[in-house]
Amino acid sequence: MNRCQVCAVSVVVLLVASAAQGSDKKSVDSLLAADAGWMKVFSAKDLEKSVGYCEQDGSVLGPNAPIATGREAITKMFSGFFALPNLDITWQADKADVARSGELGYTSGTYRMTFTDPTGKTVSDKGKYVTVWDKQKDGSWKVARDIFNTDLPAAGTP
Amino acid sequence: MNRCQVCAVSVVVLLVASAAQGSDKKSVDSLLAADAGWMKVFSAKDLEKSVGYCEQDGSVLGPNAPIATGREAITKMFSGFFALPNLDITWQADKADVARSGELGYTSGTYRMTFTDPTGKTVSDKGKYVTVWDKQKDGSWKVARDIFNTDLPAAGTP
Repeated sequence: MNRCQVCAVSVVVLLVASAAQGSDKKSVDSLLAADAGWMKVFSAKDLEKSVGYCEQDGSVLGPNAPIATGREAITKMFSGFFALPNLDITWQADKADVARSGELGYTSGTYRMTFTDPTGKTVSDKGKYVTVWDKQKDGSWKVARDIFNTDLPAAGTP
Repeated sequence: MNRCQVCAVSVVVLLVASAAQGSDKKSVDSLLAADAGWMKVFSAKDLEKSVGYCEQDGSVLGPNAPIATGREAITKMFSGFFALPNLDITWQADKADVARSGELGYTSGTYRMTFTDPTGKTVSDKGKYVTVWDKQKDGSWKVARDIFNTDLPAAGTP
């Protein structure tokens, strides 16, 4: 083999080695940044930006409701959510993983929220979530699936 | 280049091409089979096999309870579940995706369950789930994260 051929083979071997290595910190950090970015626009009740984090055919699987698939259904769901009086919501990922191939990942963590119910009482909730993310062609992460539920006992539980 | 060198380069190029292609049907089918296999042992209330589908440090994020992480906590959660009188549960994935690198994937779908409450009344529930799976060194899929919630209105909702 001449030097050019050796060089070409080396590049290809490096590409394979790169594809075979575990999810790197940079990928996980970019996913955690997307998770935090989504939380920021959601807690600010920015409807357009919040929905914009979801893929065109993404789904939000909220409790006490059927699956909302697609941006129209998700817009309706988030609108109802943002209409809760004095809504205050934050979440924090405590786990994230990205596939070695870099285009699929998930975050998981806990949320806390409060709002005022129709009687004027402050309702406090806390729970957990899993969000599955697809990396887009432009390098951004978008939500493929988001699901959450409460830690609190069901109403009426003794 | 001699024939041997051409052959070696071709193999490496094919490996790169393979790593770069989208999640193949075979990977997705193997993940759907794992999802269905887990449902089978779970609906049969086989505690050991049901917990055995979860990774050692896997988490089940059930509604109205804190996160259960690790097999001891998951065993406790599933034991309580299987103790529900006349529990009948099934689920069905309607979406599955596997990363191109083949080691991370998720399934999502709907569940239906019934059980008898302490007053003798049959309780019916239906809802949805997302399960994140990691492929193990032996080629099997294990649960990294499982989360679900009900479609039904919260108790006390008008």
